[in-house]
Amino acid sequence: QDYNLPVNDWAHSSLSVVVLGASGDLAKKKIFPALFALYYEGLLPPNVQFFGYARTKMTDVAFREMIAGTLTCRVNSRERCLEAQETFLQRCFYQAGSYDQQQGFISLNTRMSGQEASMPRANRIFFLSIPPNVFLDATGNAADCASSRTGWTRVIVEKPFGRDSDSSKELAEGLGRHLSEEQIYRIDHYLGKELIENLTVLRFSNSVFEPLWSRQHIRNVQVIFSENFGTEGRGGYFDRYGIIRDVIQNHLLQILALFAMEQPVSLDAEDIRSEKVKVLRSMKVVSAEDVVVGQYRAKGNLPAYLDDSTVPVGSLTETFAAVAMFIDNARWDGVPFLLKAGKALHKRYAEIRVQFRHVPGNLYRSKQGSNLDAHTNELVIRIQPKEAIYLKINNKVPGLGLRLDTSRLDLQYQSAFASNDLPDAYERLLLDVVNGDKRLFIRADELEAAWNLYTPLLHALEKNKVAPELYPYGSRGPVGAHYLAAKYGVRWGDLNEDDDE
Amino acid sequence: QDYNLPVNDWAHSSLSVVVLGASGDLAKKKIFPALFALYYEGLLPPNVQFFGYARTKMTDVAFREMIAGTLTCRVNSRERCLEAQETFLQRCFYQAGSYDQQQGFISLNTRMSGQEASMPRANRIFFLSIPPNVFLDATGNAADCASSRTGWTRVIVEKPFGRDSDSSKELAEGLGRHLSEEQIYRIDHYLGKELIENLTVLRFSNSVFEPLWSRQHIRNVQVIFSENFGTEGRGGYFDRYGIIRDVIQNHLLQILALFAMEQPVSLDAEDIRSEKVKVLRSMKVVSAEDVVVGQYRAKGNLPAYLDDSTVPVGSLTETFAAVAMFIDNARWDGVPFLLKAGKALHKRYAEIRVQFRHVPGNLYRSKQGSNLDAHTNELVIRIQPKEAIYLKINNKVPGLGLRLDTSRLDLQYQSAFASNDLPDAYERLLLDVVNGDKRLFIRADELEAAWNLYTPLLHALEKNKVAPELYPYGSRGPVGAHYLAAKYGVRWGDLNEDDDE
Amino acid sequence: QDYNLPVNDWAHSSLSVVVLGASGDLAKKKIFPALFALYYEGLLPPNVQFFGYARTKMTDVAFREMIAGTLTCRVNSRERCLEAQETFLQRCFYQAGSYDQQQGFISLNTRMSGQEASMPRANRIFFLSIPPNVFLDATGNAADCASSRTGWTRVIVEKPFGRDSDSSKELAEGLGRHLSEEQIYRIDHYLGKELIENLTVLRFSNSVFEPLWSRQHIRNVQVIFSENFGTEGRGGYFDRYGIIRDVIQNHLLQILALFAMEQPVSLDAEDIRSEKVKVLRSMKVVSAEDVVVGQYRAKGNLPAYLDDSTVPVGSLTETFAAVAMFIDNARWDGVPFLLKAGKALHKRYAEIRVQFRHVPGNLYRSKQGSNLDAHTNELVIRIQPKEAIYLKINNKVPGLGLRLDTSRLDLQYQSAFASNDLPDAYERLLLDVVNGDKRLFIRADELEAAWNLYTPLLHALEKNKVAPELYPYGSRGPVGAHYLAAKYGVRWGDLNEDDDE
Amino acid sequence: QDYNLPVNDWAHSSLSVVVLGASGDLAKKKIFPALFALYYEGLLPPNVQFFGYARTKMTDVAFREMIAGTLTCRVNSRERCLEAQETFLQRCFYQAGSYDQQQGFISLNTRMSGQEASMPRANRIFFLSIPPNVFLDATGNAADCASSRTGWTRVIVEKPFGRDSDSSKELAEGLGRHLSEEQIYRIDHYLGKELIENLTVLRFSNSVFEPLWSRQHIRNVQVIFSENFGTEGRGGYFDRYGIIRDVIQNHLLQILALFAMEQPVSLDAEDIRSEKVKVLRSMKVVSAEDVVVGQYRAKGNLPAYLDDSTVPVGSLTETFAAVAMFIDNARWDGVPFLLKAGKALHKRYAEIRVQFRHVPGNLYRSKQGSNLDAHTNELVIRIQPKEAIYLKINNKVPGLGLRLDTSRLDLQYQSAFASNDLPDAYERLLLDVVNGDKRLFIRADELEAAWNLYTPLLHALEKNKVAPELYPYGSRGPVGAHYLAAKYGVRWGDLNEDDDE
Repeated sequence: QDYNLPVNDWAHSSLSVVVLGASGDLAKKKIFPALFALYYEGLLPPNVQFFGYARTKMTDVAFREMIAGTLTCRVNSRERCLEAQETFLQRCFYQAGSYDQQQGFISLNTRMSGQEASMPRANRIFFLSIPPNVFLDATGNAADCASSRTGWTRVIVEKPFGRDSDSSKELAEGLGRHLSEEQIYRIDHYLGKELIENLTVLRFSNSVFEPLWSRQHIRNVQVIFSENFGTEGRGGYFDRYGIIRDVIQNHLLQILALFAMEQPVSLDAEDIRSEKVKVLRSMKVVSAEDVVVGQYRAKGNLPAYLDDSTVPVGSLTETFAAVAMFIDNARWDGVPFLLKAGKALHKRYAEIRVQFRHVPGNLYRSKQGSNLDAHTNELVIRIQPKEAIYLKINNKVPGLGLRLDTSRLDLQYQSAFASNDLPDAYERLLLDVVNGDKRLFIRADELEAAWNLYTPLLHALEKNKVAPELYPYGSRGPVGAHYLAAKYGVRWGDLNEDDDE
Repeated sequence: QDYNLPVNDWAHSSLSVVVLGASGDLAKKKIFPALFALYYEGLLPPNVQFFGYARTKMTDVAFREMIAGTLTCRVNSRERCLEAQETFLQRCFYQAGSYDQQQGFISLNTRMSGQEASMPRANRIFFLSIPPNVFLDATGNAADCASSRTGWTRVIVEKPFGRDSDSSKELAEGLGRHLSEEQIYRIDHYLGKELIENLTVLRFSNSVFEPLWSRQHIRNVQVIFSENFGTEGRGGYFDRYGIIRDVIQNHLLQILALFAMEQPVSLDAEDIRSEKVKVLRSMKVVSAEDVVVGQYRAKGNLPAYLDDSTVPVGSLTETFAAVAMFIDNARWDGVPFLLKAGKALHKRYAEIRVQFRHVPGNLYRSKQGSNLDAHTNELVIRIQPKEAIYLKINNKVPGLGLRLDTSRLDLQYQSAFASNDLPDAYERLLLDVVNGDKRLFIRADELEAAWNLYTPLLHALEKNKVAPELYPYGSRGPVGAHYLAAKYGVRWGDLNEDDDE
Repeated sequence: QDYNLPVNDWAHSSLSVVVLGASGDLAKKKIFPALFALYYEGLLPPNVQFFGYARTKMTDVAFREMIAGTLTCRVNSRERCLEAQETFLQRCFYQAGSYDQQQGFISLNTRMSGQEASMPRANRIFFLSIPPNVFLDATGNAADCASSRTGWTRVIVEKPFGRDSDSSKELAEGLGRHLSEEQIYRIDHYLGKELIENLTVLRFSNSVFEPLWSRQHIRNVQVIFSENFGTEGRGGYFDRYGIIRDVIQNHLLQILALFAMEQPVSLDAEDIRSEKVKVLRSMKVVSAEDVVVGQYRAKGNLPAYLDDSTVPVGSLTETFAAVAMFIDNARWDGVPFLLKAGKALHKRYAEIRVQFRHVPGNLYRSKQGSNLDAHTNELVIRIQPKEAIYLKINNKVPGLGLRLDTSRLDLQYQSAFASNDLPDAYERLLLDVVNGDKRLFIRADELEAAWNLYTPLLHALEKNKVAPELYPYGSRGPVGAHYLAAKYGVRWGDLNEDDDE
Repeated sequence: QDYNLPVNDWAHSSLSVVVLGASGDLAKKKIFPALFALYYEGLLPPNVQFFGYARTKMTDVAFREMIAGTLTCRVNSRERCLEAQETFLQRCFYQAGSYDQQQGFISLNTRMSGQEASMPRANRIFFLSIPPNVFLDATGNAADCASSRTGWTRVIVEKPFGRDSDSSKELAEGLGRHLSEEQIYRIDHYLGKELIENLTVLRFSNSVFEPLWSRQHIRNVQVIFSENFGTEGRGGYFDRYGIIRDVIQNHLLQILALFAMEQPVSLDAEDIRSEKVKVLRSMKVVSAEDVVVGQYRAKGNLPAYLDDSTVPVGSLTETFAAVAMFIDNARWDGVPFLLKAGKALHKRYAEIRVQFRHVPGNLYRSKQGSNLDAHTNELVIRIQPKEAIYLKINNKVPGLGLRLDTSRLDLQYQSAFASNDLPDAYERLLLDVVNGDKRLFIRADELEAAWNLYTPLLHALEKNKVAPELYPYGSRGPVGAHYLAAKYGVRWGDLNEDDDE
């Protein structure tokens, strides 16, 4: 294993991974498959076991069967995958129990201790894949009744981390009563994406990018998240949050922070996270004038958001939002950062688009027509699907005469790197928890800074019952997003047909 | 025709193109094919005819036959190519005559006038594809006896433009007695290469390149010309010049000037050429300490340069040279520019390599090993073969853990641009002469500045009878080139195995 | 003499300086005093004599008396000044004659030849201090009848160089019929000012200024010329030109060109002038929307312009103008250059003010109040009176607490440099003519480029009979100038009270 | 009071300032005069009292008499100064006691409580002006027996903060047992100097400095501390530390950190100190090869260091040191930072000198002679005496011809700012403690980072018994300092005669 992080003394320690909410969707679709992938790759310690915990009563055998259905061998041809699945399942156990009572956790602790007995030290990871309303109870009970006494105990929590500054603070204090900050791993699975990890490498290990990475050369930055499906009958949870809380205030804002932060003093988690906090604190609080919210309506036989039976009648929850943000520091003063996220749009993708300034004193202006943006240099980092990096530049069209056209300096991940076997974000993040690497997790002060930026806006939207602009299912979103962009002299880069292929 | 240049009044003018030295290699291999290509594309005026002139006696018919063998239809599938060849050949005529006597030219004039009679104005181009020793005589006779009286007369001259400052000046004065500077088109066919033309576009129409284009960010620049064949029995002419005069002092120095010049005030030929002169004048005269010369020796059954029977016994003429140059201005002070050219090397290619500075305060240094150059950002502009532009950058290797590797942001011309039908340099240049566009031709003061830089070195090499370092036919050239580079902290980028594919 | 320029062979040459228009004001106030100063400093060749030429009849003795009244010894205490005056006057001669007939010039030639006889070579300078209407005649006659046959002949011409592109071209062609470009020295005496000469030194010999000298750091540049007196009964000539032609299109535009040009390849006159032409050609033609014109009216007992009896009734000639110019190149794209000149204003001064950009992401903004401009860094180059350079920067006010204030990094010429004996511009320029140094003179293509920028505006003003905005004698000029500045986000730096002392 | 910091509720709180070591030199010379100055200026809360504490037995009256001798009215003419002295002294009290026993502190507490009774809340400041060996005992006893129970208690500690990483850590842990980090104010009185405070203002509120503040433009930075007197019979304490610990590792390193840090996210103390830590952590550990140590020897009747009877025979303690440091981050990679401090040198001053890079492609090189450094742009910030800021630039020497000379853009504090009444550093720092402003105090992690940089060197010097280079009392220090500078291409700016006046 060439994973270059401080390693634990696995020769004398066991590891137990407990998934709370083991019968839920996330557990089945993401967590157990990721655990298996790590196990299969040999990245977990030899003495590892996995526990499911949920309210449903189930035997270990039934649990294993449930999981078995979800395991796949990422690369089909890999050998001995089935055999590995078998041994993996043998290490899976299940404990039923309620979240708000200690009894189940006490039983869990007993069973874990049994499995861990062969090693002097036991390390435990709790993955909280449970609804917000049982969050604090479950954490308290787990911490009080099932913490390891001989090794470390780490707790992975998923969003939502509250609905605003106050509720987030309350949650933080609740967690703080049972756990130290060091024990808490707040996951933003977007930070585990390959290209997000690469962002730091790109900037700081290439001397051609850093000199360009500022207001002097960058005209605007766009962080875009687009889904081509709606809530599809599962909008109940979503409706209480909306896309700003669900995607923008966490995933996209985290990406923005990584993009815009100053160079950290080292690659240590604390140094990187300190820089992220610093840049978040330099951002201006989002103003209601700088937001466009939308909600999808029916188109043909594609349903409206309000057609989702789990969504309250007349809900104003936004399924689309575009936000303009500004960073008030020396590097970024005046540069608009546009964040956009939506459901039920025409395509599925997530990307960062960096539009560079127009060429000053451009010799070729007469050859470029009226839409200068068409000749903008643009760096695109496509996070999903089909990871890619490309730089749009102007070239002479080969041949006689002098005509310019835009072409791409292109890095296609899938062709550039032999294996098309990029690990899932959860694999990366789970492995980081095992190794105690907090680089990709969100620190309490980051969370606070992020909520500070969005809470006034969210409160204003609610208080004023702002009606979202409707857009058809499968469209490119509400037109208002163009006007928001235009207000800051920006043109959305992702709505350029040429880039669609 | 969308060729955006001031056009001539071809509705009332004819054009005659005269190739002096029509029976020579260049005429057959390059000039007539290029004329045909232009003709076929419809880029020449309707009233055009072509005259060959040489000492050999030949009928028009014989001449047409000779030419016919060289014409190809660049793209096979193009329609009506054979038909076009036919009409092209009907416009070809031949006149025999000596270069140093007026008689032939007077006859030529008469025949041209006959063809031109249908139009009130006659424009004439003379392409001088003849040896240096008859150069001035031929020019004088052509100018005196065969200049157009009703339109313009332009004369295309090919290198060699002398052997040093004095002989070049003499030649210039000789030409000047018969022609004005405006009439003279000094060809450097390298300037007609697709990517050389693109160089200006790349720099000045992209806001991501210009900020990097200086000593602040560029560590060194390499201009490399490599041929994988020797003189092969035709070294007689070459031996009198050597590779410095034949390639470096003109082709590579011209490329360097285009690369390094300041932004011109406009794209007009005079403005671009003024900037080229400016940067040439800022260069330091090449010192004998900054040059390595080599000559190829036999390897296996591949012959040595001295095995060429047309080469004088014991010739010291260099078939390889590497030169370090410096530009003493605000933009480039201290940056080494390395020029390298050689025959009988391992491969055939010509390229510009821009190596950027190492990342200051590099966070990733510990992950990059001892050879920092392997992680240098590098912009490569491959001029031939297979035109390409790529930027080498560092990336995270996809997957778990953090390993860096170098990958390419790549623009392959042949895949990026539909047609693989790039015009030959001669086509571009001939068309420019027709259109009176002197952007890609060398002005008298450029030539003078270029000779000023190399004449002291050339005289020193001759005076001191400097023996070239021998290198095997098919090798990567003399080892001395590495020491020259190392003296200035440079590593040749083209000798890195990874790039070879 | 440490004047580092190619010197003439004065051991074998004589010098004659002829002032045409010798009885005029300029000759008396500036030219002869400057000639004397040079003579007194020993900067003129040993064999020098001075000729006055004008229509008035006068003896040498009367002429010497007239001149004698104007000569002063710049520094009173200097020794032997009176003695020097005496010998100077002995070298002065006078020839009466008309400008449009050859007779007078023939006589002049004869008398000069007499004085020059002792030396094998005679060099001659003609200073044309005569009205435009006799300009060409006088030049032609001087050139034809009084050129030196054994040495060089140089002709100094003063503005006006025409009234627009066409008349300037006509004048140029007129001069060209008698003189080569090399012989013509077009004087702009503003280029001879100490601080204008220093401008190039400041920029190119200090590494702290050049990095700031661009659109990245400079927000705007102001070139300001203010006179605290009106035409005072001599407005006849002025009225035919107006302040745009009289000051802005030449003096201020020349200063701007020097300020904004790229670094020349050397300090040679031709290289500097080529860069000036280059930047002039990059400027946008001045648009009528970017100009404010004014005319002073009476205030108390101070007269209006129209009160000047030499001014035509109802004249619309502008005595004040403010112009916004733009340079369309990579360095200056988007930066407003504001030029302002006026008569009968509150004070007399000429200066260049460079206002730097506001600090991005300014930590101290809350401490700086609403007028950000008050905290702008500003570089001021005061050309006259009291030459000075200072840089306005923000400082902490010494003492407890944290308050910011603006203070000056200051270079007072008069205290910094011992002697307060700066040479007059005419001395410098005359000496340059003697030495053949054309650095500070205007080349024909510069003149052409300058006229191209202003001719459309001047024609529009005339054609539309644009009425100037009236402003009181002794005021700060018309209010319109503020609105012009505000249109481009600029605040005039010279109207800030604090700077007045 | 316009001191813009969060203020305490002084309407309901009292303030007691306790000086431990009240009979010592520092107390008498600096602390009580500073307290009086603040008192006199009305900057202390109305309900304030001052306590002396030391081993010596003394009555309040005797104590007041002792203090009275040290109070001066900074500005003589100030009114009612004597009256203010009188009321100040009435607020002074004295308590004798030992440092290592609780008894004295219990009595102190009782007496303080008596004075504080009138207010509901009592705040207390302890100023520890006592020797290292009683430090921890005194702190412990003060904290345990004399902390305020109704308000805050703050403790000011002076260097030495240990002798190396280990002893510093030990001390920190000792303090930490009795005090929280929030309560501790580690004083470096150099940070209270006017120009050090101004350093941040200069950089971050001026757009002309920040663009120059990096390796791109700065060639080297020198921080220099020079005293013109030796230990003069009081070398006992000094000998145990040496100049590196006494001046360089704290004062100069602190200045360097402020100079070189990145822009903080705000002006808050924590943000500034975080940036200082960041840059300290980026510095390379000082290597023994990059240090020159010296010791002064007798010169004439000026004594050697070893002549000081309090100095151990044969002491190797350095009284002079010069150090080259490097910062391994993106901004400063490769720039040498030279620190130099010495006793018994020719003059007394402290200053920062920033030497900018030579002009690339310098047009004026031929006019500048061989010593390019003489024409270097240099920014000098003189901390003491006579605070000043000046920028050395090249100018044309006024007059005919073109000669360059260096002149200064100058800001003389004493002439620029009316009052020459700059507050003493202790005033500023004491006031900051009262206001809880920790901007100018050293945080624990800063201290740790600073020791990490110097501990290996200090251990090596001691272990290897490195003999200092001797230099005469009153000289410019050991010659070795020049060789150290030369090794990195630097010339000491302070040893240039011209600057001496």
